[in-house]
Amino acid sequence: MKAGIIGGTGYTGRELVRILLRHKEIKSVRVYGRTHGRFLSEDIPELRGIYDGKVLSIETEKIIKENDVLFIALPHKVSMEISPVFQNRIPLFDLSADYRLKTAEEYEKWYQTPHLDKDYLGKYVYGLPEMNREKLKGATLVACAGCYPTSVILAVLPLIEKGLVENTVIADSKSGHSGAGKKLTEMTQAGQTNENIQPYKILNHQHKGEIEQVFEELNRGNKFYLTFTPQVMDFDRGILSSVYADLKEPLSQSQLDDIYRTRYGKEPFIRLYTGGTLPSVKLSVHTNFCDISCVMDERIARVTIISCIDNLIKGASGQAVQVMNIAMGFDEKEGLIN
Amino acid sequence: MKAGIIGGTGYTGRELVRILLRHKEIKSVRVYGRTHGRFLSEDIPELRGIYDGKVLSIETEKIIKENDVLFIALPHKVSMEISPVFQNRIPLFDLSADYRLKTAEEYEKWYQTPHLDKDYLGKYVYGLPEMNREKLKGATLVACAGCYPTSVILAVLPLIEKGLVENTVIADSKSGHSGAGKKLTEMTQAGQTNENIQPYKILNHQHKGEIEQVFEELNRGNKFYLTFTPQVMDFDRGILSSVYADLKEPLSQSQLDDIYRTRYGKEPFIRLYTGGTLPSVKLSVHTNFCDISCVMDERIARVTIISCIDNLIKGASGQAVQVMNIAMGFDEKEGLIN
Amino acid sequence: MKAGIIGGTGYTGRELVRILLRHKEIKSVRVYGRTHGRFLSEDIPELRGIYDGKVLSIETEKIIKENDVLFIALPHKVSMEISPVFQNRIPLFDLSADYRLKTAEEYEKWYQTPHLDKDYLGKYVYGLPEMNREKLKGATLVACAGCYPTSVILAVLPLIEKGLVENTVIADSKSGHSGAGKKLTEMTQAGQTNENIQPYKILNHQHKGEIEQVFEELNRGNKFYLTFTPQVMDFDRGILSSVYADLKEPLSQSQLDDIYRTRYGKEPFIRLYTGGTLPSVKLSVHTNFCDISCVMDERIARVTIISCIDNLIKGASGQAVQVMNIAMGFDEKEGLIN
Amino acid sequence: MKAGIIGGTGYTGRELVRILLRHKEIKSVRVYGRTHGRFLSEDIPELRGIYDGKVLSIETEKIIKENDVLFIALPHKVSMEISPVFQNRIPLFDLSADYRLKTAEEYEKWYQTPHLDKDYLGKYVYGLPEMNREKLKGATLVACAGCYPTSVILAVLPLIEKGLVENTVIADSKSGHSGAGKKLTEMTQAGQTNENIQPYKILNHQHKGEIEQVFEELNRGNKFYLTFTPQVMDFDRGILSSVYADLKEPLSQSQLDDIYRTRYGKEPFIRLYTGGTLPSVKLSVHTNFCDISCVMDERIARVTIISCIDNLIKGASGQAVQVMNIAMGFDEKEGLIN
Repeated sequence: MKAGIIGGTGYTGRELVRILLRHKEIKSVRVYGRTHGRFLSEDIPELRGIYDGKVLSIETEKIIKENDVLFIALPHKVSMEISPVFQNRIPLFDLSADYRLKTAEEYEKWYQTPHLDKDYLGKYVYGLPEMNREKLKGATLVACAGCYPTSVILAVLPLIEKGLVENTVIADSKSGHSGAGKKLTEMTQAGQTNENIQPYKILNHQHKGEIEQVFEELNRGNKFYLTFTPQVMDFDRGILSSVYADLKEPLSQSQLDDIYRTRYGKEPFIRLYTGGTLPSVKLSVHTNFCDISCVMDERIARVTIISCIDNLIKGASGQAVQVMNIAMGFDEKEGLIN
Repeated sequence: MKAGIIGGTGYTGRELVRILLRHKEIKSVRVYGRTHGRFLSEDIPELRGIYDGKVLSIETEKIIKENDVLFIALPHKVSMEISPVFQNRIPLFDLSADYRLKTAEEYEKWYQTPHLDKDYLGKYVYGLPEMNREKLKGATLVACAGCYPTSVILAVLPLIEKGLVENTVIADSKSGHSGAGKKLTEMTQAGQTNENIQPYKILNHQHKGEIEQVFEELNRGNKFYLTFTPQVMDFDRGILSSVYADLKEPLSQSQLDDIYRTRYGKEPFIRLYTGGTLPSVKLSVHTNFCDISCVMDERIARVTIISCIDNLIKGASGQAVQVMNIAMGFDEKEGLIN
Repeated sequence: MKAGIIGGTGYTGRELVRILLRHKEIKSVRVYGRTHGRFLSEDIPELRGIYDGKVLSIETEKIIKENDVLFIALPHKVSMEISPVFQNRIPLFDLSADYRLKTAEEYEKWYQTPHLDKDYLGKYVYGLPEMNREKLKGATLVACAGCYPTSVILAVLPLIEKGLVENTVIADSKSGHSGAGKKLTEMTQAGQTNENIQPYKILNHQHKGEIEQVFEELNRGNKFYLTFTPQVMDFDRGILSSVYADLKEPLSQSQLDDIYRTRYGKEPFIRLYTGGTLPSVKLSVHTNFCDISCVMDERIARVTIISCIDNLIKGASGQAVQVMNIAMGFDEKEGLIN
Repeated sequence: MKAGIIGGTGYTGRELVRILLRHKEIKSVRVYGRTHGRFLSEDIPELRGIYDGKVLSIETEKIIKENDVLFIALPHKVSMEISPVFQNRIPLFDLSADYRLKTAEEYEKWYQTPHLDKDYLGKYVYGLPEMNREKLKGATLVACAGCYPTSVILAVLPLIEKGLVENTVIADSKSGHSGAGKKLTEMTQAGQTNENIQPYKILNHQHKGEIEQVFEELNRGNKFYLTFTPQVMDFDRGILSSVYADLKEPLSQSQLDDIYRTRYGKEPFIRLYTGGTLPSVKLSVHTNFCDISCVMDERIARVTIISCIDNLIKGASGQAVQVMNIAMGFDEKEGLIN
């Protein structure tokens, strides 16, 4: 199998190249982008001695011919300009946000720009394996779940889909600064991030729409509200979300643990922490695992769930490969353990 | 005025010495402790060239004679062994947790040890100026509020005391590792803290009892539940708490801002952030300010409040001096601005 | 005394305001700059509640009338455009690099731009108190020493001025990222600085010229070579320089200690570490101290000197105030201890 | 091939397990140690879901029977107690310092304890591939090079072995705190490491003896002096060494580059940086590469060499596998690229 990546010079591109190079079913990895003609390692110096190919120019027919699968690792707004020529001609795994929301209205609301490929909104499978594994089998249009959404949804999915939660949860999410990408911003200058934690975009972070959409689907179409506090941390990578959910009926800690064990026990990339042990974000970075622990406050029927992922792997490139593995019928873990 | 400190070799002792040296009403600062005979700067090398005195031995009569006020900067469990001989003989400002809770039962529940000075539990004023300023005037027994409690209580006090909040809030609190003190622990080894965020003691952190006690007092004695997620961060100092409160009735953002402005507008050490600006923990460290911002989600009548303090200053030594300023009738800001 | 600052919205401006507000001889602090009309705390949010004045516009006569001393906290190249109108009309303490080098040739070599005020090059006293205290008394034109130069020169000054060193030393200097200022740069993005150490501008860092000029002066005009490796660290502030010097004749460790003790024993802002204790950069930040330790390798007559400063205080704003204290005849320590 | 590790619960053990699991020639990885009976992931939680085996007890015959190669990942002093029973019965790759020095005198000098297995000192090949590749082929007793030594020796080996350097160099080395291992120490508490750089053990760091021994060997047995400044940094992993060497005769920058290119051009794990680009430690972490750049100061015939490695990989576990690959005749890069 030959894999292509459009736009591989950012952080997710870097991780994707690394994972695909380790993947036993992938025989070649090609990267296409604006900086074509340069060695990829000029843009991503970490890859010197690991990937010595050049960035190639974006030519539709050539890309389709040279590859068996195609990953889109472009920023949002750019993916929807470029994707249409590839749809239905090659399996597409899109890491951008452009095809995650189901309607053009929602897209415009959260991204402040009209959607350019409305007909295909809704045709992509939402790429979150623990939720949509069956739909992903054989899928050729996949919008991989975002980083915050992966950490928040996986934290509380077992409770919402069983109808146990009131119609709202709170997610207090802390992300490494790589979540903001490579571009120069004031928020990600060292003088701002260092020894700091910066909340931002409370109420209007674009991932809120994505998460609420999923929660409503899990909640059988009933309205569901998310209170979301994203925060930029002084670490490179990783997301820790604390999710708070009030249950309709009280559960004991052991009933709660059972629900998670039943739902996630066979998931290859979920590690449950029970018996008082809590995950911390450092254990999940550089892996494709989502680490989860639940704590019941029986006094008030409230659950606190801690979930940790690597935003660049389970929150982006690892998940894209996991999704591809499912879609193409490979071992789901291929390339992703160690 | 002459000030004494018992137990000044930890982080809070260090900050207290620094602040008192700047204080125009304080003419001398003496430190008493186990390491008597050594220069204080041998235990706190940061103080070389700043404080060149020695640590003195703990002798009751001498301490009472040499000082006009006494700060207790000892760990909990130790303060209650040492404090009784000083009570009512010299104004006492206790930075430990030993006299914060009102009953011996609560103390034993949260600190797993019987209280040794039960009669005086309840005789100390709780040292949080924004809540108890009047009671603090002239007080000679003060139990200064803890670090997490200061950040959580100040965040939501205006809403609870007006009876606007359902009987529970959630506090997701992130603390710099100095909160754990100087002792060697696995949790505060660099290999653990670095590039990490570590939740711990969900359900049973000892500050939960202290905060719930205050909330019930603010709530006119009615039961009040706190969900509390303390987390150790990869920064030296500072606490950022995200506090979530469901209101009994919806408020608009501007009504919410008004409530905070009315309640805190004249507070010398609260800085309100409005109009979309949010505080971050770095702005409050090395100051005695508590920085607060509130965001209303009008859809579900839920408020998100962000509050930031320096755990060693507003959460400990600065607050102790602010409290002393009030108790002794000094300018409340003396020694604490810049 | 009334103090003015031109260009106070950067890191050194922020520190300068803080120090001057604490200074007992300074009754008012005014800040002038491009962002006039705004509150200074809009540009430096850390100053909210500490300094509530506005930035004022740069009008020569008004500035001269409103102030008794003037600090220039502008970037290099800008100071020499603005300074000429103030020279000889008000005492000037310049924190930029524009008047540190003695000749226009040197300036152009290191800063790649012609000097615009050549006549005044050489008329400024180099503002390093431990070297030039006598010349600084009464001085009204002072070019304060740079951050790297302060740490490197103070490390080895006692040896060079006694003629003990061969004609070259090596300085391996590590600086916090605030050394690069507030502007957005790739090198100071969190993704670059975090978990990293970045050497840069080996051979051609602009401070190399400044240091070599001083070393030649100390070396009685004889040529002196510096090998200089500046490195950007993952901490906010502070510089640690390791300086390596081969002596002409071997000395014992105790002879070496004596030389430093004799030279620096009465210096108010130098703390010597002997007997095997070494400084670390954290002990010197937030202070005006330069911490120094020397280690002799008697086998090869080579000295390793470790020196630490806070780049924003002893390396910039604290030093400027120390220099002003000397120039104006104040207590040299005023505003600078604690 | 089956690989065993004695003492795999520290940082180097963790990395070794990860690398060996990726290695195509290794069919099984067993870990032996004091904590036998527990799952390895109880001691190294990062390995949950990656390595699910238990730690096994240390039984000589069983170990020899179960494995084809044996890695010793024990602290120094412990390896020499345990190694003798395995010597000559199974290929041994020792990551400890116990068999690196050639004489018992040197060992006792640097490690303050008598050597317990003197006869075998000198029988181990020093495990630095770029220096000893030929000797390593077929070797069954290998003492893998230390972390600081790898970074310092590789920096300057091409110059010393050609006899170009005076009889001394200076190495200013900065190491991530993982270099100190997992044990609780004051130096590696977060309050010490964070926002800090801590020099330590100048003159008497134990790696100084190891490096000087190698330099004398490279220098044809002539005495060679190292000035060594180890420093603990505020990052998890990685070493950046600045090495300073005075040449006997001046070289141009391009002659210098040629020497390195000639010597290292075919080395699979050395990446040279030329043309003004400098390495930084972050590019080499999580890889087995040693990144090197040389800068010539032609004025004084002095070379500054920057070298970067991951202390846990090229400085420990990756190097051990590279060495094993050479010894066993595998592809040298197996398991080590990406």
